[in-house]
Amino acid sequence: MSRPIRLGMVGGGAGAMIGNVHRIAARLDGRFDLVAGALSSDPERAATSARDAGIARSYADYAQMARDEAARADGIEAVSVCTPNHLHFPVAQAFLAQGIHVICDKPMTATLDQARQLADAARASDALFILTHNYSAYPQIRQARAMIARGDLGNLRLVQVEYAQDWLAEDSDSKQAAWRTDPARAGAGGAIGDIGTHAFQLARFVTGQRPEMLAADLTSFVPGRALDDNAHILLRYSSGARGMMWASQVAPGRENGLRLRVYGDKGGLEWQHDTPETLQYTPFGQPAQILRRAGPGSLSEGSRVPSGHPEGYLEGFANLYSEAADAIRSGTMPDTLPGIEDGLEGLHFIDACIRSSKADAGWVRVMP
Amino acid sequence: MSRPIRLGMVGGGAGAMIGNVHRIAARLDGRFDLVAGALSSDPERAATSARDAGIARSYADYAQMARDEAARADGIEAVSVCTPNHLHFPVAQAFLAQGIHVICDKPMTATLDQARQLADAARASDALFILTHNYSAYPQIRQARAMIARGDLGNLRLVQVEYAQDWLAEDSDSKQAAWRTDPARAGAGGAIGDIGTHAFQLARFVTGQRPEMLAADLTSFVPGRALDDNAHILLRYSSGARGMMWASQVAPGRENGLRLRVYGDKGGLEWQHDTPETLQYTPFGQPAQILRRAGPGSLSEGSRVPSGHPEGYLEGFANLYSEAADAIRSGTMPDTLPGIEDGLEGLHFIDACIRSSKADAGWVRVMP
Amino acid sequence: MSRPIRLGMVGGGAGAMIGNVHRIAARLDGRFDLVAGALSSDPERAATSARDAGIARSYADYAQMARDEAARADGIEAVSVCTPNHLHFPVAQAFLAQGIHVICDKPMTATLDQARQLADAARASDALFILTHNYSAYPQIRQARAMIARGDLGNLRLVQVEYAQDWLAEDSDSKQAAWRTDPARAGAGGAIGDIGTHAFQLARFVTGQRPEMLAADLTSFVPGRALDDNAHILLRYSSGARGMMWASQVAPGRENGLRLRVYGDKGGLEWQHDTPETLQYTPFGQPAQILRRAGPGSLSEGSRVPSGHPEGYLEGFANLYSEAADAIRSGTMPDTLPGIEDGLEGLHFIDACIRSSKADAGWVRVMP
Amino acid sequence: MSRPIRLGMVGGGAGAMIGNVHRIAARLDGRFDLVAGALSSDPERAATSARDAGIARSYADYAQMARDEAARADGIEAVSVCTPNHLHFPVAQAFLAQGIHVICDKPMTATLDQARQLADAARASDALFILTHNYSAYPQIRQARAMIARGDLGNLRLVQVEYAQDWLAEDSDSKQAAWRTDPARAGAGGAIGDIGTHAFQLARFVTGQRPEMLAADLTSFVPGRALDDNAHILLRYSSGARGMMWASQVAPGRENGLRLRVYGDKGGLEWQHDTPETLQYTPFGQPAQILRRAGPGSLSEGSRVPSGHPEGYLEGFANLYSEAADAIRSGTMPDTLPGIEDGLEGLHFIDACIRSSKADAGWVRVMP
Repeated sequence: MSRPIRLGMVGGGAGAMIGNVHRIAARLDGRFDLVAGALSSDPERAATSARDAGIARSYADYAQMARDEAARADGIEAVSVCTPNHLHFPVAQAFLAQGIHVICDKPMTATLDQARQLADAARASDALFILTHNYSAYPQIRQARAMIARGDLGNLRLVQVEYAQDWLAEDSDSKQAAWRTDPARAGAGGAIGDIGTHAFQLARFVTGQRPEMLAADLTSFVPGRALDDNAHILLRYSSGARGMMWASQVAPGRENGLRLRVYGDKGGLEWQHDTPETLQYTPFGQPAQILRRAGPGSLSEGSRVPSGHPEGYLEGFANLYSEAADAIRSGTMPDTLPGIEDGLEGLHFIDACIRSSKADAGWVRVMP
Repeated sequence: MSRPIRLGMVGGGAGAMIGNVHRIAARLDGRFDLVAGALSSDPERAATSARDAGIARSYADYAQMARDEAARADGIEAVSVCTPNHLHFPVAQAFLAQGIHVICDKPMTATLDQARQLADAARASDALFILTHNYSAYPQIRQARAMIARGDLGNLRLVQVEYAQDWLAEDSDSKQAAWRTDPARAGAGGAIGDIGTHAFQLARFVTGQRPEMLAADLTSFVPGRALDDNAHILLRYSSGARGMMWASQVAPGRENGLRLRVYGDKGGLEWQHDTPETLQYTPFGQPAQILRRAGPGSLSEGSRVPSGHPEGYLEGFANLYSEAADAIRSGTMPDTLPGIEDGLEGLHFIDACIRSSKADAGWVRVMP
Repeated sequence: MSRPIRLGMVGGGAGAMIGNVHRIAARLDGRFDLVAGALSSDPERAATSARDAGIARSYADYAQMARDEAARADGIEAVSVCTPNHLHFPVAQAFLAQGIHVICDKPMTATLDQARQLADAARASDALFILTHNYSAYPQIRQARAMIARGDLGNLRLVQVEYAQDWLAEDSDSKQAAWRTDPARAGAGGAIGDIGTHAFQLARFVTGQRPEMLAADLTSFVPGRALDDNAHILLRYSSGARGMMWASQVAPGRENGLRLRVYGDKGGLEWQHDTPETLQYTPFGQPAQILRRAGPGSLSEGSRVPSGHPEGYLEGFANLYSEAADAIRSGTMPDTLPGIEDGLEGLHFIDACIRSSKADAGWVRVMP
Repeated sequence: MSRPIRLGMVGGGAGAMIGNVHRIAARLDGRFDLVAGALSSDPERAATSARDAGIARSYADYAQMARDEAARADGIEAVSVCTPNHLHFPVAQAFLAQGIHVICDKPMTATLDQARQLADAARASDALFILTHNYSAYPQIRQARAMIARGDLGNLRLVQVEYAQDWLAEDSDSKQAAWRTDPARAGAGGAIGDIGTHAFQLARFVTGQRPEMLAADLTSFVPGRALDDNAHILLRYSSGARGMMWASQVAPGRENGLRLRVYGDKGGLEWQHDTPETLQYTPFGQPAQILRRAGPGSLSEGSRVPSGHPEGYLEGFANLYSEAADAIRSGTMPDTLPGIEDGLEGLHFIDACIRSSKADAGWVRVMP
């Protein structure tokens, strides 16, 4: 194992769920040392949060952090961006400009225009841009992708993907809920931005196909909510495949219910997030097979623990960080690691949903 | 238990799956005696099939059967119609005209126009018309309906229903497949007629609401197939609820995958056909509950066997037949028993799907 | 389909659960006509119960029924014995003596001595004796038996069987509970007789092996209960295989939790009663397979409905009745149909459990 | 968060599964810095393994490590012992003697005599001794323990615990298999030592009760194997409760199948390792409840991620390490953290199994 990568973090102060997830994911396989952070724009809160997280150098201003760290011999080599969505763009831009690798939460930016600008910035930078679509790093999702790529399902016909939660079923003033339902901080998408982009990327990643057209029926069920909290979407692929997507944050009993089902003319695959280590494979006319992480039939290479020792969300997230570490050390993005183009597609997806919704769920091109 | 009802059957000869299902369902609770049949239009096949099924009087012509049985003192009191779809209309009409109760398989007719005519005939007849939407007779579906009716879910927001199979994933020349993929015998709907009508009725039955608008993306994946084998449908209700429906006969690994999930502002309910005796109830903010047929919390009255002694498809079908027997004996249709209006709605649903599909999945009214 | 067999019934009057099960099972496939019964020893209750069940000839005395029916040209050909356990022996003996086939509920008799006498009577009679160990008639149990017989698991090592319920977790005065906890009517075994015999027979049936030795720790948890309500049993086979059996009627939440798991040196099989149509097959070092009734890989021949149309307890019971009809018509017991030797083994099993329990759970021979 | 604890490690070099697990668990919550190690007795392998694991100070001799680290101002405060079983005793003793806290894998020692000596040493030392019975640190296991302690199940009657794997179903020469089947390194117990002790501790932890007597039927199914690879055990508690334990390493298809079911006179609880975040609670006569980590009804306090974001084996292990960090900082063992007495009980359990097995599975006292 090579020397750990010096990592910084922007956002993720006290009370932020996803900041701690990034820190654990960075730490889990020992590939990163978190040494600097701008965890809050309030200097005192930033300092307290940094101390609590064991971070040596605390900043209150991410721009200054980018400049100062770039100037240090022992400055950070990469930064994790865990702010609310509207800050992803300026923060990522600031660090890319200094040649510091960026590991950014999704959706990539608050607007499609920002996404385009950031894509330009990333293409122009020597630094890597990595987007934490963590669900695509589950081993059985990688397995599904590999099986489809080698033709186990034949020609794909159907892509059914859903991501349903219940935590916004009622009006909430939690810190988590507040910014996610505020267009100024979340961007134009509510459920479609927060979880729809995950569902979109997951289906895209596993099938290797991007839908050409979509028709989106967006709803805000909770009175007074400015952004969508439910989305019903039809998908059409240029290959002839069709799909459906459901993204919801108002489905009581669904905790974090991401599910993907793909069917081709030779077989089907089903995966759901509450049993992430199980992939059901149904070759047409043969018994269904249960494919387990690190179990018989597994196409993946290594694993931390044998099958039957459950891995979950944090390990999936850590897979992404470990792959990011490999990419940073090698200077090359593997095609399994989500990056700037995936982020751009995600914003196109959000934009297309909104365009379709305004046209009464009419068909629109995902990437015009 | 009162004297068994004398029953006839049209269709359901050798090789027909659903005819045997109707016979078992009629027999299971001992409420019917099957005494006459026109199981085939070929006299010899009709006679052989009748003999194999232990039916005393065999006819080759359903019209003659209707006349002759009506004329007998010991003639049939009710008839089960198990033919391919295109014959439902003339057969049902013939028996209704003789005052013989009709128990008819779905979809009710091959065309909307026939459905309207049959509805007129049924309204004019003293005889009852019962439609075998058997899935709505599962005890845990009845439980779901009762819970929603008493407000356990609050105001409904989301209706997610799907019915996926795989048996038409490839071109097939089985007897079952042949007529279901032939517009002349199946009617205008393929998957939407054969299983979509079940999904539509199930959601309608459980929620008590009929969608006002739908947008349907129909596909025929198998080359050369004249009818849809997959349907992706968006639903809008006048109450403000929204829904999605997926009906497919080309999803490898899905055997008979009917699933219904309903969410309101106070809770959710989930049911799936492969575990028909389990209903998952998720009151918002409380632990999920597993409600089992005849188990604690059950709202239904009687049962054949205690919870934990699995009942399934045939018992569900038999529930419908037993309820039909009660209705016939009492002369009154209970509101849980699907009838002529449900059949008419089903044909409106098929028609709406086709109208929408022709308009590139644009929104159409379900019942204009 | 040949002419239905004329069937009689002893026991199974109003309030008896299992009598109705036998009636449905006999009726489901149309192989029997239930024409005579002694459903109660009280003449009025017998008559009322018979009328409710649509039975033409009612008797209050089973002995008279045996004599009278044997004397009639249209007398019953077979009789179902659904009484409490202590009457199985005299009733079965009375009908066997008249050459009438007996279909008897389990355990076969109340005592081992009765079982031995009945076995002698059955061997001496031309009539068949069939024991309704219904669980062994589930198609996926038959599948498991066939797979083990052809060597799919290799040499068997482990047999883990359990049957857990909760309905006797508290003292109960229901009719069902009353006789099952009364040694005078249930016999010497409580849980081991009522459900342990099922578990024993199921494991025996599937593996083809009978344990040579057992050690049984029997308990009566509910204060004042005279019979065991829980049994923990170790098993040893002459082949070298070992096993465990758990039978309980005091496990809250277990409805009717029969489960069988068998492991050999080449693979394993798992089945549980709440999903009776699924058999999990785990060949060592290969992905687990889900084998479904009538699905790919199925070794069974016919089926009433396709896979995905759930069959359950009543269909399993009806499988036994249909096989009994075949046996009665052909005069030959197939080796899949439980009979007198199985009943005798069951009583030996009960006896062995009690002997072992008296010896502080010491090892005893199952059949000395 | 206080300063990380300086940690050392003995054992856990290249190829060792559990060493990496300890390292991840120590790192996951950022409570430890791994700074010294004797990962192998071969100096070169030790150095290479330490370098790969990012450990600053490498030793080839644990005794020297104990002395040297104790002498350093920045020496380790705690040590993780991840060697094969036979070294647990001398290694733990060496560090305890230097006042260094010990975090030791299970079983605690190879022999009961060593366990007694180590217990004396631990009681005499100011340093803490922590035993990594990681399964007892799953949140839903803690939930079960708390529910039983507050009386949710009433008086306990039944404890059914099993731990089944398949990885030793055939003879194997893997490094993992080699020492676990060698009495010189594993100690007197095979499956009972490697996984039986986990099952024993889990049941003990959740119920708060230790069985008084057991009867164990141990087997070595794989030819030539010196230690047991399967155990069937009956349990009796002084409270009147009874139990069964199954521990196996030869059950094809069982990956790491730990399962616990506990029933009292008021309700039941069921948990299984492949869905570790779900606890099923069945209050007698009420619907079953699904209790989820961090979900409604949860009694635990904090969590890394919300319910629906699966945590697994490594997080459970990390829970133990975090609790160990708290204990080390506070100087007090909480009663949820397994320690020296648990280790001693585990060796008594192994010893009792072997004594019983030699007496043909006769009853023996667990702690004479």
